Amino acid sequence: MYATSRGTVEMPAFMPVATQGTVKGLDPRSLGGTGTQMVLANAYHLAFRPGEEVVAAVGGLHRFMGWDGPILTDSGGFQIFSLAERTRITEDHAVFRSHIDGREVAVSPERAIAIQEALGSDVAMVLDHVVALPNDPGLVREAAERSVRWARRCRDAARRSDQALFGIVQGGLDAGLRRWCAEQLTRLDLDGYAVGGLSVGEPPAAMYRTLDATVPVLPADRPRYLMGVGRPEDLLEAVHRGIDLFDCVMPTRNGRNALAFTDEGPLRLRNLKFERDQRPLEAGCSCPACCHSRAYLRHLFLAREMLGPILLSLHNVTYYQRLMAAARRAIAEDRFGPFRREKMLGWAAGPEPR
Amino acid sequence: MYATSRGTVEMPAFMPVATQGTVKGLDPRSLGGTGTQMVLANAYHLAFRPGEEVVAAVGGLHRFMGWDGPILTDSGGFQIFSLAERTRITEDHAVFRSHIDGREVAVSPERAIAIQEALGSDVAMVLDHVVALPNDPGLVREAAERSVRWARRCRDAARRSDQALFGIVQGGLDAGLRRWCAEQLTRLDLDGYAVGGLSVGEPPAAMYRTLDATVPVLPADRPRYLMGVGRPEDLLEAVHRGIDLFDCVMPTRNGRNALAFTDEGPLRLRNLKFERDQRPLEAGCSCPACCHSRAYLRHLFLAREMLGPILLSLHNVTYYQRLMAAARRAIAEDRFGPFRREKMLGWAAGPEPR
Repeated sequence: MYATSRGTVEMPAFMPVATQGTVKGLDPRSLGGTGTQMVLANAYHLAFRPGEEVVAAVGGLHRFMGWDGPILTDSGGFQIFSLAERTRITEDHAVFRSHIDGREVAVSPERAIAIQEALGSDVAMVLDHVVALPNDPGLVREAAERSVRWARRCRDAARRSDQALFGIVQGGLDAGLRRWCAEQLTRLDLDGYAVGGLSVGEPPAAMYRTLDATVPVLPADRPRYLMGVGRPEDLLEAVHRGIDLFDCVMPTRNGRNALAFTDEGPLRLRNLKFERDQRPLEAGCSCPACCHSRAYLRHLFLAREMLGPILLSLHNVTYYQRLMAAARRAIAEDRFGPFRREKMLGWAAGPEPR
Repeated sequence: MYATSRGTVEMPAFMPVATQGTVKGLDPRSLGGTGTQMVLANAYHLAFRPGEEVVAAVGGLHRFMGWDGPILTDSGGFQIFSLAERTRITEDHAVFRSHIDGREVAVSPERAIAIQEALGSDVAMVLDHVVALPNDPGLVREAAERSVRWARRCRDAARRSDQALFGIVQGGLDAGLRRWCAEQLTRLDLDGYAVGGLSVGEPPAAMYRTLDATVPVLPADRPRYLMGVGRPEDLLEAVHRGIDLFDCVMPTRNGRNALAFTDEGPLRLRNLKFERDQRPLEAGCSCPACCHSRAYLRHLFLAREMLGPILLSLHNVTYYQRLMAAARRAIAEDRFGPFRREKMLGWAAGPEPR
């Protein structure tokens, strides 16, 4: 259980991604119906459009989005390195060209905090220096070291007492560097700690090894957050390793692309075999998509109707939240190991290739 | 009040358009929340995709769409002449190329009924011969005469006792021809009568004159339905002239394009003046869009987020249904005239040009 200024979040928790202040296709009421307790929004995107000063002028991010539960804002470190063009890093700040209009923009740790304080999220993230993997070991080390220095500057810049601040461990796949980075951040006495820079193309086993090295160094009395991950099996593997908090576009992005998560593995709804399939996506699921037949959902995708992406996003977010709720019960009842094995078997035994 | 095999519909009524078996972006629960009692679906589109035999195989159109209220299906006359390429008309049938795959397809009156019986709608429409306006008077007359002959063939082909059949008056803007067509159709003793072939680019006054000529000829004890119309002011002008039933894509299509209907005229949400506007679209509206500020709705459209089209479609359908409910109350209280004038004044006094 994690207490924010806007209520508590049961952990482990999954945050759907509301990049631009909306979980794509889902209004706040529908989102609440999925079991979602906390969402992630993106400071980088919102600072460009509509601008954090616009959000502040209309009463802050919660009021703007119509979501009164907790919100975490990502600082934009990941976006600066993945979306922006021609990023230049100095010790003071990152300079890059906007992905929207090509405008040149500088973001320093202090500016990243100012944006998030204007947005008014419950949890702000430090600005980190993310690098692609695999990469030159010297560059990976330099980025991890800079991430620690930037985290300190973020902490020193933060002014809002109603906003928590989480650090982000970097260090690529180098276990020693990850441990060092986690130790350095821990000394800053932040409100929570994230593991960043993973799920960028490395094999799952490499990600799990990195978690094995990192998580034990992080304080167990603060949330430990794995950023941008991932598949249902990744979530259970990470919970097994001590992770409390997740965000990922996977349920919504896959939902928009006609893929539905179920306990028997994913269903690809465009497949002809669903043409006359009267069953819901998953028996017993109470989401709005599961009022309908697979045949109807398939039709919506073939007819390019936006109700298809809407309904599959709702189902997938509901599926992820149900999985997290089941994981919490299993942990409380001291049977997480068997629970994880049972889920993995179900996904692996499904009719479709992963 | 109109009784169908699936419950009654209060009239005058407005049917949102579910062309392909979904009102774009709205799930059946949301649609019910707008006050919608009956929807229109399109036999032409559904016969192509997924095919009426698929809909029948999964339990019929109501179960397919997840909508258990009344459904009217348009026969496809309008689509055959507007969407299809190179239509050829013989007395027996229309032959045209599919707008989806270019396949050559023949639709006779009997086939139009068979499709609608397979879909299982509560109200089927006869197949009519629609022509563009303005047009050669001889062609307009020929199409109106053929529409009457085809209506008789539809009536003779209809087998389902649980499905009503409505005729469609054609005749362009020729009052005499409209009257003749209405009289001929009335002799067929159909369950309801539609006025078709209007709102195809003619001035509103010409449409109202055509209604003045046509509606008095139609039996007052059967629903009188104006197809494909229209703007809020058109609805009130038509109700004033005795029309009971409407369908139109205007609330949803305009909603997807960032235009919101209000009692003070339409709001174009992309306008910069809404950037920091904290007000809802319309004070007192209980639709899900009106939980949000205009500033947020504008942001959704500028950010190309699908929640924008979803929320404005919901608002606009709710607006149309509220207008129809108010019209019904005004009629019951014998004050429709003043009600209509008051609404017209509000729309005309709005801040934006029509």
